[in-house]
Amino acid sequence: MIDRPEPEPRAGMARVRVRLAGVCNTDLELVKGYMGFQGVLGHEFVGVVDDGPDDWQGRRVVGEINFACGHCESCARGLSRHCPNRRVMGIQEADGAIATHVNVPIANLHVVPESVSDEQAVFAEPLAAAFEIPAQVDVEPGIRCLVLGDGKLGLLAAQVLETCGARVQVVGHHPVKLALLSRRDITTCLERDYQPRQHDLVVEATGSARGFELALACTRPRGTLVLKSTLAEHANIDLAPLVIHEIQVVGSRCGPFPPALEALADGSVEVVPLVHSRMDLARADRALAKAAEAAVLKVLVEAT
Amino acid sequence: MIDRPEPEPRAGMARVRVRLAGVCNTDLELVKGYMGFQGVLGHEFVGVVDDGPDDWQGRRVVGEINFACGHCESCARGLSRHCPNRRVMGIQEADGAIATHVNVPIANLHVVPESVSDEQAVFAEPLAAAFEIPAQVDVEPGIRCLVLGDGKLGLLAAQVLETCGARVQVVGHHPVKLALLSRRDITTCLERDYQPRQHDLVVEATGSARGFELALACTRPRGTLVLKSTLAEHANIDLAPLVIHEIQVVGSRCGPFPPALEALADGSVEVVPLVHSRMDLARADRALAKAAEAAVLKVLVEAT
Repeated sequence: MIDRPEPEPRAGMARVRVRLAGVCNTDLELVKGYMGFQGVLGHEFVGVVDDGPDDWQGRRVVGEINFACGHCESCARGLSRHCPNRRVMGIQEADGAIATHVNVPIANLHVVPESVSDEQAVFAEPLAAAFEIPAQVDVEPGIRCLVLGDGKLGLLAAQVLETCGARVQVVGHHPVKLALLSRRDITTCLERDYQPRQHDLVVEATGSARGFELALACTRPRGTLVLKSTLAEHANIDLAPLVIHEIQVVGSRCGPFPPALEALADGSVEVVPLVHSRMDLARADRALAKAAEAAVLKVLVEAT
Repeated sequence: MIDRPEPEPRAGMARVRVRLAGVCNTDLELVKGYMGFQGVLGHEFVGVVDDGPDDWQGRRVVGEINFACGHCESCARGLSRHCPNRRVMGIQEADGAIATHVNVPIANLHVVPESVSDEQAVFAEPLAAAFEIPAQVDVEPGIRCLVLGDGKLGLLAAQVLETCGARVQVVGHHPVKLALLSRRDITTCLERDYQPRQHDLVVEATGSARGFELALACTRPRGTLVLKSTLAEHANIDLAPLVIHEIQVVGSRCGPFPPALEALADGSVEVVPLVHSRMDLARADRALAKAAEAAVLKVLVEAT
């Protein structure tokens, strides 16, 4: 834990008193050296604005993590999440939300609907990342989707694809995690029992370098593979099947908050069962260690 | 050279007396063991039907190389080039065209317009592969395209993209090859002098495993990378930029013949300058060796 003075909000920024922050696998990669980030971790949060413009004061908010410059070609094209001058909360040049307070540009804030609890709202950011999939590729009702990985993102992506009307199968390593999908119209399978077959759309969310080749093998000719894992390690890959089968691979990172907040409000995506435990901010280091355990899904940090 | 009896055409097939066959880099990979193919090489040809249905008899033709079953789910969806039961001329379970005769399904034949010479027509197959790019991805006028590789496919792809109205740059290793584009509105650069910058669309046609990472580095966020190289070797790849920049990678193989024949007929794509030499069928082995030389583009084999 880093002891710093409470941040002073700059122009266009609000200071948010954090209520809950979530630990993401990216945080664990950052600790290993990914991106060379040295600041305060945390890019999933819900909190209350305690210093900012009057109309934001006291509002319960979540926030998008890419702090764009607003002036460049990418920003002008509406690709602010890809602004080359961006800072990224808890990842690149901007302190994150595993803290008492976090500074966020007003433009990045979204008010949380009253019906959405703090425990749900803290999932807005990873759930938005799952909603990036249908924002990038056509998910037509009835298509055969495979999600590789039963981690947090895999479980969220599977639910999002199911709400789009896709026929979804999830392949993972943990019966307990897969069981969280049992009340939904999603089939699940342990990887050791899985016989690869071909799907229209495959989401690679294993967080493992070797997941990519299995994902390729499970994508039908002219099908789509959405790659979600960002890894510090390189992968040794046979790209020939990608060319032979004319597969489309789509890298996918952060996503839109509005559909995520809507899905939390109407309950179409369930997130609370993913919470493993809550820990005080004073025990943030233990929260990170706990989140790194194989059987654990979401660990939340309580800042107040 | 293999000495075999002239093939007997089966039902639905025509026997084509080959006039010219082209040597492709895939042939060189096949010789190295790619696909484990043992038959007659050659999948680029122009010839005359000498045994087949009356309305095809004596016609000058080129032919698509994927021999589909016509009955499976892929064929029913119009994806006959991806039929899982397909044989592929000179590549998989079907003898190729570096021979006096080749058997081709009638469904795969295209009549060559009279104004197109044999030397042009033999490029129909690789040029179709270049036309697969605009068939798969939007090539809007004015977009910034980069073609990596000044081999045969790179030079064809660059011309096709230019005819679509894109602003095209080609990066390669051979001044002589790049000079073939000098009469067109295409900029060229030697790789040793190239400073990577970002493009909307990048075509990877280097035929080299390390081309992929350079291609990724030259693709703008949310841009498209078309992968054309099929290689026997694996590549050690950092996939993180693909995810961070949400790049779309599209594998691209065989393409549509009609636009290729049209471009040959109207001269919008020039192919004859790519011909390095013509050799008799009796010297096919030397033709393959010649085609493997770094400075050589297309080597043609004369069967008659």
